[in-house]
Amino acid sequence: MKALVYDGVEQLGFRDVPDPVPADGEHLVKIQAVGICGSDMHAYLGHDARRPAPLILGHEAAGTIVGGPKDGTRVTVNPLVACQTCPACKAGRENLCPNRQIISMPPREGAFAQYISMPLSNLVTVPDDVPLAKAALAEPLAVSWHAARLVLEALHPSMDKTALVIGGGAIGLAAALALQAMGVTDVTIAEPNDARRAFLINTCGQSTVAQAHGQWAFVIDAVGYAATRAAASAAAQPGGVIAHIGLGQDTGGLDVRRMTLHEITFIGTYTYTAQEFRDTAQAIFDGRLGPLDWTEIRALGDGHAAFEDLHAGTVASPKIILDPWA
Amino acid sequence: MKALVYDGVEQLGFRDVPDPVPADGEHLVKIQAVGICGSDMHAYLGHDARRPAPLILGHEAAGTIVGGPKDGTRVTVNPLVACQTCPACKAGRENLCPNRQIISMPPREGAFAQYISMPLSNLVTVPDDVPLAKAALAEPLAVSWHAARLVLEALHPSMDKTALVIGGGAIGLAAALALQAMGVTDVTIAEPNDARRAFLINTCGQSTVAQAHGQWAFVIDAVGYAATRAAASAAAQPGGVIAHIGLGQDTGGLDVRRMTLHEITFIGTYTYTAQEFRDTAQAIFDGRLGPLDWTEIRALGDGHAAFEDLHAGTVASPKIILDPWA
Repeated sequence: MKALVYDGVEQLGFRDVPDPVPADGEHLVKIQAVGICGSDMHAYLGHDARRPAPLILGHEAAGTIVGGPKDGTRVTVNPLVACQTCPACKAGRENLCPNRQIISMPPREGAFAQYISMPLSNLVTVPDDVPLAKAALAEPLAVSWHAARLVLEALHPSMDKTALVIGGGAIGLAAALALQAMGVTDVTIAEPNDARRAFLINTCGQSTVAQAHGQWAFVIDAVGYAATRAAASAAAQPGGVIAHIGLGQDTGGLDVRRMTLHEITFIGTYTYTAQEFRDTAQAIFDGRLGPLDWTEIRALGDGHAAFEDLHAGTVASPKIILDPWA
Repeated sequence: MKALVYDGVEQLGFRDVPDPVPADGEHLVKIQAVGICGSDMHAYLGHDARRPAPLILGHEAAGTIVGGPKDGTRVTVNPLVACQTCPACKAGRENLCPNRQIISMPPREGAFAQYISMPLSNLVTVPDDVPLAKAALAEPLAVSWHAARLVLEALHPSMDKTALVIGGGAIGLAAALALQAMGVTDVTIAEPNDARRAFLINTCGQSTVAQAHGQWAFVIDAVGYAATRAAASAAAQPGGVIAHIGLGQDTGGLDVRRMTLHEITFIGTYTYTAQEFRDTAQAIFDGRLGPLDWTEIRALGDGHAAFEDLHAGTVASPKIILDPWA
């Protein structure tokens, strides 16, 4: 099959590799849409020790089961393979499973390829009327759905539900959409890139600012750098809640003194539970997350150029979806 | 009256000052016991811009109402004077009142003095059989009671309630006692000072370690420095909760990457609600916080020496209580 292989810092090669061979209980999935995530970009830039070259990246995938009794079933892929037996899994918190694997991190190859092999429990059936390019958004949307659920659960019931989302990439936009789907109507996205901000306003109908001034009950840091954490800890209201998504910088930025004096809660969030992945997929299918018409589709064979464009900041759309068969 | 006045960095003078004159609705309280807090020490060392010299420090006080219809009533003092009218106060979160005042910060003088003036709603009646030196512990115990309640509320119900408390001063010990009063039986205090650790074991019956190794569902950082936050973020289990008390250093220390990958929640905490102050006082009166026999009583006139001893690390007891009339 063809795959886009990460060969080293800023090197991606589109070439033939062996087809995956499904393990017991796994199914072969023909990938028809796979998104580029910020974490793929971190890996491409050599900033993710969990993703050493050579490796097939990509974990936001949708496609069609090939072979077996489910042959031809259109699916979106939950890339997080949990053990199902540890206390975290039994509590429905697969995101905390100490044995969790994620495709695009060894020992599992990623989905920038024509096929992957996955356990059936990681595959969610997609209705015929939902394009697979939309279904592939289940993964990034589930990341933000999880964060939105956690901040809503953590906020004191006396506070008005106002939200600032820092960063208008796919995760930030998805956080705004998830909060809105959960009934939070007052959502502002802070995004300094002018082209992306215009896109968020004009195509996505979101309220945006270049820089956050003011305070909100929720702040979702959808970037994960020291500077965005500094902004988040300045922008949370007393008694408010910050959810932090992203692995940009390991430490620094939080104004702990302010968080202490004003009882601000900070929740680190990463991925989602299996139920949240299914809930998010259902919300996509039901249209509760909007038209999801803010993606840009390119051929997987042009994947390297897509990474270069994203790194240069010249992509207005919050998400590029790659098609391995284009 | 006599008062211990903070005159500048590491300068405390015990001298005559004018008696306070109660404002409308306030009562004069004869102070009979007042504890030294870590925040008094920060101020004494010149590290607290909120407490500029000259100023009477001290906010952990108990005494007797003098004059008026409540004359002779023994009380412990909630030092946090909230506005009672803002949304936070109306929600019972007086600790988040934007107009809050705390005695020992301008415009209110503190309780290292023979008298203070306080609103009646800040005074909790102490039963005759409870010594005022014990009742004066309501304030630091309420700080930790609040933190313990917040971590218990935030923890996922599937997790075993194991707790690490970092720092074995009064706030750390109080956190351990509050958690135990709330039913958490597995509590470890990390305290590097050998004399204090021996005191915690022998006098307070606590489980202690010099350095934390391992992971716990709750971590209460009762110190508030970058190093203790680093220890806290390393010691929290995946899905666990950190409560942070203390204003030692404003920023730094947290391993945000680990907190993000493992969904660790960090809650900044400071003071307590009015209800929690009353609840803590009642727990003291009922004996639910133990014998509270771990204080050392000294004369207010010897207050400067007490600060010097605390700063030198030669005080094994987690709390020195000063008596303005000794």
